[in-house]
Amino acid sequence: MAGPEEKHENASPRSLPTISDVARHAGVSPMTVSRVLSGGHHVSAAMQRKVENSVRALGYRRNESARSLRPGHRSGLVGVVVTNLTNPYYAEVLDGIGEILGEENRRVVFGTSHEDFEEEARLVADFVGRQAEGLIVVPSGGSAEHLLPEQRHGVPLVFASRRQEGVDVDAVLVDDVRGAEEVTRLLLDEGHRRIAFMGNALSVFTGQRRYEGFERAHLAKGVPVLPDLVRRGQQDVHAAGLTAHELLALPEPPTAIFSANNRNMIGVIKALYDVGRERGVDMFARVRLAGFDTFDLEELVPGDLSIVTHDARELGRTAAELLLSRLQGKRVDRPSRTIELPSSIRTRRRGEAPLAQA
Amino acid sequence: MAGPEEKHENASPRSLPTISDVARHAGVSPMTVSRVLSGGHHVSAAMQRKVENSVRALGYRRNESARSLRPGHRSGLVGVVVTNLTNPYYAEVLDGIGEILGEENRRVVFGTSHEDFEEEARLVADFVGRQAEGLIVVPSGGSAEHLLPEQRHGVPLVFASRRQEGVDVDAVLVDDVRGAEEVTRLLLDEGHRRIAFMGNALSVFTGQRRYEGFERAHLAKGVPVLPDLVRRGQQDVHAAGLTAHELLALPEPPTAIFSANNRNMIGVIKALYDVGRERGVDMFARVRLAGFDTFDLEELVPGDLSIVTHDARELGRTAAELLLSRLQGKRVDRPSRTIELPSSIRTRRRGEAPLAQA
Repeated sequence: MAGPEEKHENASPRSLPTISDVARHAGVSPMTVSRVLSGGHHVSAAMQRKVENSVRALGYRRNESARSLRPGHRSGLVGVVVTNLTNPYYAEVLDGIGEILGEENRRVVFGTSHEDFEEEARLVADFVGRQAEGLIVVPSGGSAEHLLPEQRHGVPLVFASRRQEGVDVDAVLVDDVRGAEEVTRLLLDEGHRRIAFMGNALSVFTGQRRYEGFERAHLAKGVPVLPDLVRRGQQDVHAAGLTAHELLALPEPPTAIFSANNRNMIGVIKALYDVGRERGVDMFARVRLAGFDTFDLEELVPGDLSIVTHDARELGRTAAELLLSRLQGKRVDRPSRTIELPSSIRTRRRGEAPLAQA
Repeated sequence: MAGPEEKHENASPRSLPTISDVARHAGVSPMTVSRVLSGGHHVSAAMQRKVENSVRALGYRRNESARSLRPGHRSGLVGVVVTNLTNPYYAEVLDGIGEILGEENRRVVFGTSHEDFEEEARLVADFVGRQAEGLIVVPSGGSAEHLLPEQRHGVPLVFASRRQEGVDVDAVLVDDVRGAEEVTRLLLDEGHRRIAFMGNALSVFTGQRRYEGFERAHLAKGVPVLPDLVRRGQQDVHAAGLTAHELLALPEPPTAIFSANNRNMIGVIKALYDVGRERGVDMFARVRLAGFDTFDLEELVPGDLSIVTHDARELGRTAAELLLSRLQGKRVDRPSRTIELPSSIRTRRRGEAPLAQA
């Protein structure tokens, strides 16, 4: 970590002029100085010049990091783009990223793309413009152009959870294909032949990979995937609930539903609950559930449930470590690498739900 | 929003020299330029000088925002400190903040204090050092010193969800006292006389306020609060689960539990589930639940449940708007104000759980 800039950063900030020194020098209130420093709103041009002169005369800067934007100095900022923060999965990923970067005294500038690649492109451009040293992106999958090296001015990039075709950088993924394949095989082995798939659009990396696993398990077993039961593009609980209602209203509804992420799973569970109340039927006994990613209170689901789990925080940590190893020059010019984190399958059976004991 | 810097920001970045121009001018590869710009690791001093000369000769800057750190220019960064990102409540708050700030082309630099005021102080100092224009903090409640105007160099501060005694700034709160009082009264009116309280430490603003409401309801009804049933300081689901196990193992366990936040509630629910399985008893029929903040799948809780709800995203939005009105000079020098957002109570009864219909 030692670099040519270190000696500046170790200078004690206490010896530097403060905002009060500037105020005294300029003969104005500290509030006026602060107003000028933060944009000069509601300050006359004359007052502004006066303060700026004092700032220059005293060599005031808010603190050392103001220097970091000269060429050769580190900003200490890492730009992070996730697709949906209110999915607790991504909150865990972000927390893991922050944990590792914080240890190296770097901070996260953060944005949510809402699965919109144009918003993602705006965020990436914005972070690069703010001198971010590095980027960690969960790509929305719409387009790769803004992620190309020239577009990000050579700022190192790491993909988390998903990869984007055509962009050759370090990535941390979950073994989506194998996880989806194994949990689907479990359902097929139990005899299910009408298994619905609910997940992201095919353009989304994980959506495509998890569907691939789902399909592979069917192929291996010689069971056809039923196109009518494959539903993609639900990005939040509400949309997933509507889709699940549609599936349950089919003349031949699915006997099992595979949810490719936890937002879809929660939507499915709520739909089963609502339809069950409407019809006076225990829908959790009629539809076998499987899916990706843990969620709070999965033990309360009153039916069979299999979950492909992996450690979201560890995924975030690993992404941050990959980025740091590039930033610290340890892996400059080495080829990019992809780390696949392991997943495992956890199954709960209906009899384990609390009310069954009552 | 129009300021003296606007004319610079409107200059087309396409007319500015690119990293490739610098590389051509210096006779090096774009990768070398990029390495020099991001810290100069693995680049010889001679090469570094060459690139820096070309950077100066061409007037290259990564983009316009590099200028923003001169006095009088906006950084466009807002520092946000939450106590615990993996509580979905705070993820919603943060998403609401990001939504409003994004509309004004500002970005969030983000950190988690983990309820540790020293970490909070480090984050605040760090954000101020990075020229954050404003701060939004969920204060951990340990100490106020780092939040005083002088310590934050006059950078505007808004409190979200909690307020810190002794720091006079804008704040957005939930009407914690009334919410806790009303939901506790509901339990008392149902005849409960042994109601446990599980929440944050008293030093935490919401912990103190929600306890105050809990206590007020008891006072009004002439029912004593039982000190043995008041448990504070659990900050995550695991700790809350352990505390709930302790309460349930008491010779005279509580007949109702009030959880002051959703991490405590989830811990309580998991403990009821586990103890129920161990003892072969339906614990959800024996312990009435009430608490603050929604959570996924609350409809699956197989017992009576009352939740004090409010709109976390709206709280984040409002905090961002309060900050913007200060940044945009609309409320400079006006006294600070506190906005209390309304809460409401939602009750689900045991019979509504899905298995009860089977």
